[in-house]
Amino acid sequence: MPRIDLSALPVRTGSSYLSPHDQAVQGRSWQAVATSLSQFGANLVTLEPGAWSSQRHWHTHEDELLVLLAGEAVLVEEHGETLLKPGDIACFPAGIANGHHLQNRSARPCQFLAIGTDRPDIDECHYPDIDMHLDPAGFRRKSPRPA
Amino acid sequence: MPRIDLSALPVRTGSSYLSPHDQAVQGRSWQAVATSLSQFGANLVTLEPGAWSSQRHWHTHEDELLVLLAGEAVLVEEHGETLLKPGDIACFPAGIANGHHLQNRSARPCQFLAIGTDRPDIDECHYPDIDMHLDPAGFRRKSPRPA
Repeated sequence: MPRIDLSALPVRTGSSYLSPHDQAVQGRSWQAVATSLSQFGANLVTLEPGAWSSQRHWHTHEDELLVLLAGEAVLVEEHGETLLKPGDIACFPAGIANGHHLQNRSARPCQFLAIGTDRPDIDECHYPDIDMHLDPAGFRRKSPRPA
Repeated sequence: MPRIDLSALPVRTGSSYLSPHDQAVQGRSWQAVATSLSQFGANLVTLEPGAWSSQRHWHTHEDELLVLLAGEAVLVEEHGETLLKPGDIACFPAGIANGHHLQNRSARPCQFLAIGTDRPDIDECHYPDIDMHLDPAGFRRKSPRPA
């Protein structure tokens, strides 16, 4: 059936971020809702109060779009902060160096649908605030390792 | 700004369907909300009572996803009908011959976000209920023309 039965989909938590950058997303959970598609993906994401959607980041080769479905979240990006409410949509074109994420600063959970392409073969993800970088080989620290 | 200012976007109506297949979508309007992206597109679509989202169709080369944001709509596809409510998500993989569309049978407008890829160079769109077909050359009737 084309309609997605959310009750039948696993709810995932956790993060593959390098420590301690995973701490901010501990209150994040998601369901992959578009596994039948191959050209883009979609995650239905819930943020508990205090949780972030991710570390602030931008992708070199992956377009992203999100639509807020319930609750409120603060979109933080290079140009400032914007409160998002249900029905608000935001777009993040591949290759535009505008690190972004959502923060749930409210007292209630919020939920959004995040749509994006998936190009792990060529994509790099930049994290302007922290000592972490993602490229096709995986996560690494930007700083040199101690000798 | 990544957040889309819907008040600044043109609201489009009309259809390039061959007559009389354009009648069913006269109560449809939409805003293209992801023009900054290149890897997929997104339309915020409003259906007045009685309006259809499209003729029932499926794409050979374009994935589609929709999420209902407000009101109610009936998803009609090969396997039956499903009432969609806010937060409901449906996926339509490219190449799966499952003609689908939404009908607003309620007394109030409904709104959904439709995400899809755009491959007019190779995509064909099948309309199982009507005498119309879309391929890279444009719309045509499936029936032979009168001699």
